[in-house]
Amino acid sequence: MSEKNKDQEIGLVETKYYNAPAGEKFVLESGASFFDLKIAYETYGELNDERSNAVLVCHALSGDAHAAGYHKDEKKPGWWHEMIGPGKAFDTDRFFVICSNVIGGCKGSSGPNSIDPSKGTPYGLSFPIVSIKDMVAAQKKLIDSFGIKKLLAVAGGSMGGMQALQWTVSYPENVVCCIPIATSYKHSAQQIAFDEVARQAIMADPAWNEGDYYGRAHPSAGLSVARMIGHVTYMSDKSMEKKFGRALKKKELGYGFTSEFEVEGYLRYRGDNFVKRFDANSYLYLTKAMDYFDMEKGKDFKHIFKGVVSRFLVIAFSSDWLYLPAKSKDIVKALKLNGIDVTYCEITSDYGHDAFLLKTPEETKLIKHFLSNAMKKIKK
Amino acid sequence: MSEKNKDQEIGLVETKYYNAPAGEKFVLESGASFFDLKIAYETYGELNDERSNAVLVCHALSGDAHAAGYHKDEKKPGWWHEMIGPGKAFDTDRFFVICSNVIGGCKGSSGPNSIDPSKGTPYGLSFPIVSIKDMVAAQKKLIDSFGIKKLLAVAGGSMGGMQALQWTVSYPENVVCCIPIATSYKHSAQQIAFDEVARQAIMADPAWNEGDYYGRAHPSAGLSVARMIGHVTYMSDKSMEKKFGRALKKKELGYGFTSEFEVEGYLRYRGDNFVKRFDANSYLYLTKAMDYFDMEKGKDFKHIFKGVVSRFLVIAFSSDWLYLPAKSKDIVKALKLNGIDVTYCEITSDYGHDAFLLKTPEETKLIKHFLSNAMKKIKK
Repeated sequence: MSEKNKDQEIGLVETKYYNAPAGEKFVLESGASFFDLKIAYETYGELNDERSNAVLVCHALSGDAHAAGYHKDEKKPGWWHEMIGPGKAFDTDRFFVICSNVIGGCKGSSGPNSIDPSKGTPYGLSFPIVSIKDMVAAQKKLIDSFGIKKLLAVAGGSMGGMQALQWTVSYPENVVCCIPIATSYKHSAQQIAFDEVARQAIMADPAWNEGDYYGRAHPSAGLSVARMIGHVTYMSDKSMEKKFGRALKKKELGYGFTSEFEVEGYLRYRGDNFVKRFDANSYLYLTKAMDYFDMEKGKDFKHIFKGVVSRFLVIAFSSDWLYLPAKSKDIVKALKLNGIDVTYCEITSDYGHDAFLLKTPEETKLIKHFLSNAMKKIKK
Repeated sequence: MSEKNKDQEIGLVETKYYNAPAGEKFVLESGASFFDLKIAYETYGELNDERSNAVLVCHALSGDAHAAGYHKDEKKPGWWHEMIGPGKAFDTDRFFVICSNVIGGCKGSSGPNSIDPSKGTPYGLSFPIVSIKDMVAAQKKLIDSFGIKKLLAVAGGSMGGMQALQWTVSYPENVVCCIPIATSYKHSAQQIAFDEVARQAIMADPAWNEGDYYGRAHPSAGLSVARMIGHVTYMSDKSMEKKFGRALKKKELGYGFTSEFEVEGYLRYRGDNFVKRFDANSYLYLTKAMDYFDMEKGKDFKHIFKGVVSRFLVIAFSSDWLYLPAKSKDIVKALKLNGIDVTYCEITSDYGHDAFLLKTPEETKLIKHFLSNAMKKIKK
């Protein structure tokens, strides 16, 4: 990267924390509750005087509040760095971009690895089950704390897209536009199945110990397998063929059970790396929240988005077989049935579900244009 | 079933055993070897005087020699009972059908749970790695023991299809025709990846103990997760949607980590059941054999079937995303390039990869017709 371009990047950033007033109860969709809600978040760009340029970016299963820029002493930027920054899809010269760690997560927001104030030890499985709606309700508290009445946009891919969709239904008056990417308005049996297998892998690890493992050995082997399952579903047959094919790590077959094929080595590496940065209990909580996600529940399909006033840009990727373009088209259909303004775009990509994390010129252009238009409209 | 129809079914059957002459060495593709090859097998129908009506049926990963009929005191018939029997696709009134457990397996043929004659204890991981070619070489010994010079047909789905393909290359003079179903001539990166995750799930179980667990607790938790992964890949998004959708086992969400959705209960049930009948080490050996399967290795694509003289009926299923119809079409292409007689049929089905185990009128008709023609041709 040239020096000039480097100047255009977001540089050092820090994660900040929102703390609900001490003793305040945060009540969840299930009826359960917990105290002392904490939300880890980052912001990029400046909030304008009218507080009308805020864009909330929601992360997926393995993401966190660190969406862009660099943390001190870390070489890797945030998970959507390619998309957030000066002149980028989410242009921080124009917009105030916010990203927060979901509740139930493990990167600073309230979750199973937080300290239960009533006991002084981590919650573990005594932390209540959270839903996508609960995640969004927590984000609303954060947004309120900024004095932002209306988000210009809420955007995200995969589980982030579920949050984006939920925002428009939970708080229709508070979202100008919505960008759900590679997502679905309800988790399918197949998606639940893959999540359940991942959970079983974690819970099969004796170190998991019913979620009570903080302060000792974590269920790393189980979490690593869970992550590997995820990875295979995030890639496409074609992208794996291109990236690995049947390439071997050594010259010849080893005739043993060590990692021989490049693809095996890659999966083990990704699994082993993940356990260093993620909490196994959070993996259970977040997959469960996704599995519970069902906007249709108790409603007719055509009423899912009743009363919603946001405008939508729905994006899917051609080779995504976990969150099929057909699922995005169902979102579009449900929106259209309510006369809601929606643009749908299926981007041709070989990268499977992972494509939502990558930058494509097409997606950048789409989002830039969509946000520009939204900004123009609210200025009128 | 009416009494009349019941008479047409194969009734009680017993697994029999082929034992290589004591002290005979069985040398494998890797160069490794073992002694005292044992093959579990079953046969249905009668071998004719010319010994020209033998059909070898090859099983998939979780199958065994018990392909049809009933074992004493068991309610479930063999794995391809719907397809093998009087008047069925593999018509036992006309053909002598043979099915044997693959080597590396755990249902009576030599494998990691066999006794190492040099030690008097089970091999475990000291059993050598076997390939699809090795499985076929073992089957050849069994076929020779029947005095059969030429198999009328060799057929199988998934891993069974790989064996069928390998037969035509290993022993071109000994196979009149070949029916590879829902298979591939080389395992892809994605297929290796799913297998590797399953293996990791087994090896992550402390009870696995580097494969040395016979006589004590088996790695059931790990094997169960491995089987669940398999099951998700064997079904299609659509079949899961139809069979389970988002149906709950109880009336309402439980907000906990017990099995709540029907699909979760099903997977756990299938996983738990599997560990009662399958050996974890065999799961490692057989997935490895599939991952090693690569008929292209060291050859140009167009030479894969060079010298092959069998006729082929290649069958694929529309919703099979693990062994895509495209992979079957590649087999057809490679055959056509060698001027080999091949019929390709893609059967429309919602059942994903599992479809190969089920009976469809279309498939039955195809196979019956194909075998009849083959029989006619050799009689000429």
